[in-house]
Amino acid sequence: MPLNKEIQPGDNDELTRERLQATFDTQQMAAALWGSDLARKRRELAKKVDKLTVLHDSKDMSFMTREEKLSENARKVVQMFAHVADIVEDPSDDAEMFHLSSNAIGHEGHPFGVHFVMFIPALKAQADDEQREKWLMPALGLQLIGTYAQTELGHGTNLRALETMATFDKATDEFVIHTPTVTALKWWPGSLGKSSNHAVVSANLIIDGKSYGHHNFMVQIRDENTHKPLKGITVGDIGPKMAYNASDNGFLGFDHHRIPRRNMLMRHAKVDKNGVYTKPPHAKIGYSAMVHVRSVMIGHQGMFLGSASTIAIRYSLVRRQGEIKEGSGEVKILDYQTQQHRLFPQLARAYVFMFAGKEVRELYQKVLSDMEKGETTLLADLHALTSGLKSVVTHLCVAGMEQCRMACGGHGYSRASGIPEIWGVAVGGCTYEGENMVMLLQLARYLMKAVKETKKGKSLGRLVDYLLLPQDRHSLIGRVPQGEYGPHLAAFEHIARRQIFKVADELTKLQDKGMSKEIAWQKKAVELQRAARLHTRFYLAACFHRKVQSVVDGRIREALADLYHLHLNYELLDMVNYALEDAYLKADQVDFIREDMYRLLETIRPNAISLVDAFEFSDRELRSVLGRRDGHVYENLYKWAKESELNRADVLPYFDKYLKPMMLAARQRSNI
Amino acid sequence: MPLNKEIQPGDNDELTRERLQATFDTQQMAAALWGSDLARKRRELAKKVDKLTVLHDSKDMSFMTREEKLSENARKVVQMFAHVADIVEDPSDDAEMFHLSSNAIGHEGHPFGVHFVMFIPALKAQADDEQREKWLMPALGLQLIGTYAQTELGHGTNLRALETMATFDKATDEFVIHTPTVTALKWWPGSLGKSSNHAVVSANLIIDGKSYGHHNFMVQIRDENTHKPLKGITVGDIGPKMAYNASDNGFLGFDHHRIPRRNMLMRHAKVDKNGVYTKPPHAKIGYSAMVHVRSVMIGHQGMFLGSASTIAIRYSLVRRQGEIKEGSGEVKILDYQTQQHRLFPQLARAYVFMFAGKEVRELYQKVLSDMEKGETTLLADLHALTSGLKSVVTHLCVAGMEQCRMACGGHGYSRASGIPEIWGVAVGGCTYEGENMVMLLQLARYLMKAVKETKKGKSLGRLVDYLLLPQDRHSLIGRVPQGEYGPHLAAFEHIARRQIFKVADELTKLQDKGMSKEIAWQKKAVELQRAARLHTRFYLAACFHRKVQSVVDGRIREALADLYHLHLNYELLDMVNYALEDAYLKADQVDFIREDMYRLLETIRPNAISLVDAFEFSDRELRSVLGRRDGHVYENLYKWAKESELNRADVLPYFDKYLKPMMLAARQRSNI
Repeated sequence: MPLNKEIQPGDNDELTRERLQATFDTQQMAAALWGSDLARKRRELAKKVDKLTVLHDSKDMSFMTREEKLSENARKVVQMFAHVADIVEDPSDDAEMFHLSSNAIGHEGHPFGVHFVMFIPALKAQADDEQREKWLMPALGLQLIGTYAQTELGHGTNLRALETMATFDKATDEFVIHTPTVTALKWWPGSLGKSSNHAVVSANLIIDGKSYGHHNFMVQIRDENTHKPLKGITVGDIGPKMAYNASDNGFLGFDHHRIPRRNMLMRHAKVDKNGVYTKPPHAKIGYSAMVHVRSVMIGHQGMFLGSASTIAIRYSLVRRQGEIKEGSGEVKILDYQTQQHRLFPQLARAYVFMFAGKEVRELYQKVLSDMEKGETTLLADLHALTSGLKSVVTHLCVAGMEQCRMACGGHGYSRASGIPEIWGVAVGGCTYEGENMVMLLQLARYLMKAVKETKKGKSLGRLVDYLLLPQDRHSLIGRVPQGEYGPHLAAFEHIARRQIFKVADELTKLQDKGMSKEIAWQKKAVELQRAARLHTRFYLAACFHRKVQSVVDGRIREALADLYHLHLNYELLDMVNYALEDAYLKADQVDFIREDMYRLLETIRPNAISLVDAFEFSDRELRSVLGRRDGHVYENLYKWAKESELNRADVLPYFDKYLKPMMLAARQRSNI
Repeated sequence: MPLNKEIQPGDNDELTRERLQATFDTQQMAAALWGSDLARKRRELAKKVDKLTVLHDSKDMSFMTREEKLSENARKVVQMFAHVADIVEDPSDDAEMFHLSSNAIGHEGHPFGVHFVMFIPALKAQADDEQREKWLMPALGLQLIGTYAQTELGHGTNLRALETMATFDKATDEFVIHTPTVTALKWWPGSLGKSSNHAVVSANLIIDGKSYGHHNFMVQIRDENTHKPLKGITVGDIGPKMAYNASDNGFLGFDHHRIPRRNMLMRHAKVDKNGVYTKPPHAKIGYSAMVHVRSVMIGHQGMFLGSASTIAIRYSLVRRQGEIKEGSGEVKILDYQTQQHRLFPQLARAYVFMFAGKEVRELYQKVLSDMEKGETTLLADLHALTSGLKSVVTHLCVAGMEQCRMACGGHGYSRASGIPEIWGVAVGGCTYEGENMVMLLQLARYLMKAVKETKKGKSLGRLVDYLLLPQDRHSLIGRVPQGEYGPHLAAFEHIARRQIFKVADELTKLQDKGMSKEIAWQKKAVELQRAARLHTRFYLAACFHRKVQSVVDGRIREALADLYHLHLNYELLDMVNYALEDAYLKADQVDFIREDMYRLLETIRPNAISLVDAFEFSDRELRSVLGRRDGHVYENLYKWAKESELNRADVLPYFDKYLKPMMLAARQRSNI
């Protein structure tokens, strides 16, 4: 039995030969990536979906209009929930459900896109017991479809600027929800435009002319039976986007729309019938939900990059182009150093992002259980960490996916490659759930605080402990890397520490010169972001290290270590100027790093396909002609193309309408 | 009269106030960018298109299916040619025609997309006089529509591997065109799928069983009147792509399809009726056409980045978000250093890419006139230069456009921003007309040859002269930059030279150890690409310098110099490790560069809108709600959204079909 478990009879021979070179068991590697339990569930789930034809795409979504996409995914998602008990072991397990959804639905969205991810969590967190009874149970049973409406046309990150108002009317015991301007329109919520009949709406609470800031309100927006928008409500789709076009992201406006007082979600803050307002017990109550979404995002982004890597690496073993030595025949494009250098570092990133996602979700669980014991110190740490990770990981993911796509040459540009769509989905992550630039500055704020503590000899927490450690003045990286690449990891630490202290000093100097704290912060904003990025990249490298250390199986560990060492070299080169500036690294050491990186590209090459096979993405999930497991690319590209909507007829009406009259007239003119 | 000529009554006040800060005349800057003649023509042309409603988009293309897009652009392009004499001064002027097309048609393609750009040039270059008479005149008059079919499903850059065959049949005096395998299908040619009735087809010429390599053949593929594919011909659309979806890129297969012998284009190579083959006089005869397309691309990419910069900078002056000082009100997002750092370097790149495009096109004209005198030495130089520029410029453009898009926050993700579409068009440029990685290696080959010459004390040509110059060991960059930033430009030169010589030495060493030339090249491929990139970036910086030097008007020159200096600082930081490795730059000098860059961001800020206004892109051309000249963004976003195809009805059929039955059943279950 070959170690690579993806081999099947009838596959493209090229891929089979590649797979036979595996030095490790791909299912064991899958267990390292996903956890052994989830890895098993994923395999079983994919098999079940394979058999349930009602869950299959009726055609490639690339050939559909938006309305067809919405309809198709509404069909599939309804079927998916009808069959959910037969397919997954635990429908409340987010990870399992995510994989089911990515097999059956894909990543372009569906009518319940926000229902389970934000609407229900908001009810769980913010509805009081009576409200839970009223809305949470029906929501869980899919008697209604809900969304979460916060951002507005003119307002995003800065929640204090939201314009939508909820004014309490004591006389009727109601809130009057109102959108005073066009910029106050709710804008962007998923599934809002055409699918949802309920929304949790963020609005500025006003009682007796006094503003109490934004609070959440349950608003029914469409009639339960006719689905028509209720009176006083304007709702619709915001139009096509880069991707996610099976989601009806929507706009929502209110014309003095009245809801009962008890539609304000009152688990924490409250308004009684006399208009007396009760503050929530903690100011940061919504905090942990945000942290949760971001921690989940990190793993998902890793999967997106893993998908793109799978597609590009498989295709690079099918595609032959050019000769290395004239007359020796065309070679597989993955045999070029340039192609390896383009792809393997992305593969390594996909691995570490998935590991980091897992580590962060575990940390989140710990924070949650700590919080139940009243212990909240780790929350700020986790918030800072996820802010940085969200920003760095999304940025590197989309840049990496583009490299994967371009590595597929012309065919990467076709929707048949599958990368354009997942790239479009992933790139949204740079903006939603906290714009990346803002996120970096949030982490930077935490780091500057940590420096202050450090100067008092204290540490804010585990994540910034290293700021207290004694520093080597010069790197110990040598021509022959030491087994565990300790000096490489130390260089990440040094680089992060140096930039953090440097910008902290610069901030102090500006303030010493009389500049206000806010203006000094502005003047150093870009340098602060650099500090946040370098800190995060150190965290990622260290996380990879921890993972490799934790693996027991020697063959898995060795294959992972190759990726880890490549990651260290590649990322270090990407930030090497910081280590050169203070002569921590010398020029010959940088050359050692380069040489070792090129060596590792060659080492990884024979295992490349097995390293991507270990993700165990099903063909159904990848939705890529180029990335098919069986490697039968070209005949299927042709088959795919023939399904293009433009091939419905040999001659399309625009020929007779425009081109024929033009050519006829031209021929007549030339005959005169 | 304000210096910024884009101010109009009724504009968003915010933008008018910004425009009143201009320190230079925007029309004069436009003349510096486009040349004064073209700048004037562009303005006049845009006004004429404004009045000709038949040339206007009937709705935003984002709301259309592919078939609607093709039909819409077929309609407009036929009208455009019907009116061309009234709109442009010289229809044979590519630049003027490009601007007409970008106003009327946009960048998504149309049925003559390849006809004028490749089909006609191929006929001009390769058809003999009799053939010109037969096909060129009808093509120019639009009696037929042609495309150029070269790449195949399984074959791209390496033309020697093309599989399509043209076998000479002496008995009938015909060629038999045949596609022996699925990988031999012609794949990708624009306008091939549904629009063209003729194609210039590259095929491997075979006479008496002997292969003579790829040659071009004129093949009629569809009936002139019915437009049905001719017998023996399979043709269709290859399906949707990332962008360019108003273009019917196609596939084309031949089943022993016969064409007359005289359909081989015979200006250079010939086959007579006895099957006697005559070689073309020069081997590199197709060379200059490739160089031409690449040199045109550089300017176009600059325009794409300029468009994205215009959109992002205008929107960043309309959008307010967050407070720098608490309680002082939300600020324009362009007031953040992070936003300036994101956008202004892209703006500077757009400028220099447009300048480089112009310089290279002029060089191309010189090469052409030299060639007429039999002088071809500059051709290799120009080929190397355009290879590097094509690769570096397309890469930096698309990365920069993504920064522009993300700088628009959530709304940048909407198709309303306009950036997704032009980004999708621009990113294709990384792959077509020579894949970027291959292009860099072509330049590297030239550079390695140049090093050999240099060691003999000679120079290959003007572009690599600097390799011969004496070198400073340390940079002279100081805390206060000298007027012309000479030491900065010298650093680019130093960095390029160092890497070029370094990799040349490494290649020699490997070969001295007994490695073959080809394998050594493989082992150093990534380092060779780095050398090619650094050489090109030095060229770009030097080009910017030449441009600033050439400007006479003091105010224009000052504003341009700010952008140039920003470019120097920003790009230098991006490659600074190369200058740190050999201690050419010291840490404090790097800090000087950083400080000066942050200073320049503030200097440029008040002129930002005028610097983008100077491109004079019309609203019709930009097709962006965010980038509207008048700054009325929000109300028009709402207006745009209401036109979404999903808003055709309040309730779409998928509700009644899938969602309603699901919710009803759930409610019934809960009542039991």
